[in-house]
Amino acid sequence: MHQAIYEGDRRLRVRDVPETPPAAGEVQIDVAFTGICGTDLHILHGDMDGRVAVPAVIGHEMSGTVARLGAGVDGWAFGDPVTVLPVLNCGACATCRAGHGHVCPRLTFIGIDSAGSMQQRWNVPARALVRLPADLDLAHAALAEPTAVAVHDVRRSGLTDGEHAVVVGGGPVGLLIAVVARRTGAQVLILEPSRQRLAVADRLGFATADPTARDAIEMIQEWTGGEGAAVAFEVSGAAAGVSTAVDALAPRGRLVMVAIHSAPREVNLHRFFWRELTMLGARLYSPYDMATAVELVAAGEIPAADLISRVEPLHRVDEAFAALESGAGVMKVLLDCAGRP
Amino acid sequence: MHQAIYEGDRRLRVRDVPETPPAAGEVQIDVAFTGICGTDLHILHGDMDGRVAVPAVIGHEMSGTVARLGAGVDGWAFGDPVTVLPVLNCGACATCRAGHGHVCPRLTFIGIDSAGSMQQRWNVPARALVRLPADLDLAHAALAEPTAVAVHDVRRSGLTDGEHAVVVGGGPVGLLIAVVARRTGAQVLILEPSRQRLAVADRLGFATADPTARDAIEMIQEWTGGEGAAVAFEVSGAAAGVSTAVDALAPRGRLVMVAIHSAPREVNLHRFFWRELTMLGARLYSPYDMATAVELVAAGEIPAADLISRVEPLHRVDEAFAALESGAGVMKVLLDCAGRP
Repeated sequence: MHQAIYEGDRRLRVRDVPETPPAAGEVQIDVAFTGICGTDLHILHGDMDGRVAVPAVIGHEMSGTVARLGAGVDGWAFGDPVTVLPVLNCGACATCRAGHGHVCPRLTFIGIDSAGSMQQRWNVPARALVRLPADLDLAHAALAEPTAVAVHDVRRSGLTDGEHAVVVGGGPVGLLIAVVARRTGAQVLILEPSRQRLAVADRLGFATADPTARDAIEMIQEWTGGEGAAVAFEVSGAAAGVSTAVDALAPRGRLVMVAIHSAPREVNLHRFFWRELTMLGARLYSPYDMATAVELVAAGEIPAADLISRVEPLHRVDEAFAALESGAGVMKVLLDCAGRP
Repeated sequence: MHQAIYEGDRRLRVRDVPETPPAAGEVQIDVAFTGICGTDLHILHGDMDGRVAVPAVIGHEMSGTVARLGAGVDGWAFGDPVTVLPVLNCGACATCRAGHGHVCPRLTFIGIDSAGSMQQRWNVPARALVRLPADLDLAHAALAEPTAVAVHDVRRSGLTDGEHAVVVGGGPVGLLIAVVARRTGAQVLILEPSRQRLAVADRLGFATADPTARDAIEMIQEWTGGEGAAVAFEVSGAAAGVSTAVDALAPRGRLVMVAIHSAPREVNLHRFFWRELTMLGARLYSPYDMATAVELVAAGEIPAADLISRVEPLHRVDEAFAALESGAGVMKVLLDCAGRP
């Protein structure tokens, strides 16, 4: 069977390897689709070489069907459509016991800390499986994982009906957050400099603005009748995105820190004090968030056609990553892992 | 009657002025004691000249008794012991309607935006009065306002029984926070470089450490059995205090931003993301916080003897401010406004 491997030094390669039968407690999945995540790009760029042991099969946004069961596994049958909750927490530490297993300090993330889904057949612990509805398009189902991120981020914000929320950054995660946020009854504005991404957001009916074209804060003030936003999601990863998100907020506003800022950022802490703002870090998702995400994808609430820019066969993994890197015209790229590679 | 005025340019002066009768809706207070707040020092240093109209009577941590009622005021009688909730919010904006009047964008703070209590007789709107128990020592009662700050900060943290809380900065506000935090059943550690302040904290039975003498994070890890603290209060106002407070926290930890950081600070946002930390700005207090503070002071829960370093008559306002500026050996300085100045 074929698998794409990251070899270090910005190199990906597809290789043919013997199939490994699932161990006890594992399930083997026929992988259908694997979406390429921003984290996968970071791995390719070497940013996570301290954590990823090469050669590594990466990938964690996926869909597929059950192929074989390891010893001691029941409750699953050949052909069952599934996705994977790639979060294996220790279950024993104070964080896990408090119900926050997704930020367990001893967390194993499947697809980063162990082999991922950019391969035809993938063995995962049975406890990581998430059942999909029988009639769900498996390409759409590969969006469940990033949708779970958005569900988690919106839940963390406490956003409610009638509030104003600003999403700073209109890439795939920003757009998914906007979609989930709008379902709460909130007003949603997406700030994004790319024309192509703005066009997608416009088409989906969001208020949008290019923060490089006009003063974003002035515009948010107008949009909120001078009050400021109740919630801001910082998804851009840029220093300017942080200040915009802080300055956008009304007194008692909540800033959800979604993006990964690898460098420390200057933050206006006086404004946090003065307006009693709250900043909430948000990472991954809980099983509940994933279940909600599957429901949303299955209900057609997630604009799959607008999000999936391209599907490439597994053997074109280089081209797939290159497409994602090519610029803002591309939202999500999926690898089709099922066909002959 | 006598009053201390801030004249700008780091100058304070005591002057004799005619008494003004209370206007309709106002109550005149015979001021007993006024504590000097860090904010009052900022005003003296000219940091708030854009906001304070000179000549200005400042001061807002106080106690006194009712002297006269303006037209239309009832419910109060001559001699009633009182303190003042110096927060006049608009009551009409979205923030006020949401119940967060203390961060109302149109807030008037008595003692900064209007005349304060560093005078013998003080007229305030009747709605700002807070009743004190008849037998409460009025010097202790002047601690109700800073205690309300601490009550608010601890409430904002959501601290609960058995959690570990680190207070970064052991001045008067840090110490009050520690006292209020301990009453929740939490374990409390105070980080403070000054020997004199550490001695006070030690005497009050707190775990203490000098962050300049030993790696603070290593020590907090030991103190929490390797888990990190559930809550950190940043009360130091220093850049290093911010990083210590962030690094001290366990996954899902809460950082309460109490200090006023007038310059932007570098913040490790990656850690906010990775551990799903929360930062909560905290400013002032609600009427509920003030009522709780009065109860705590009246019940002897606030270590007034350790906090009140010095009491000076009003005419020695210069010396009183100088004592506070002299260093860490001094906690609170009160002005005795009742006697012949």
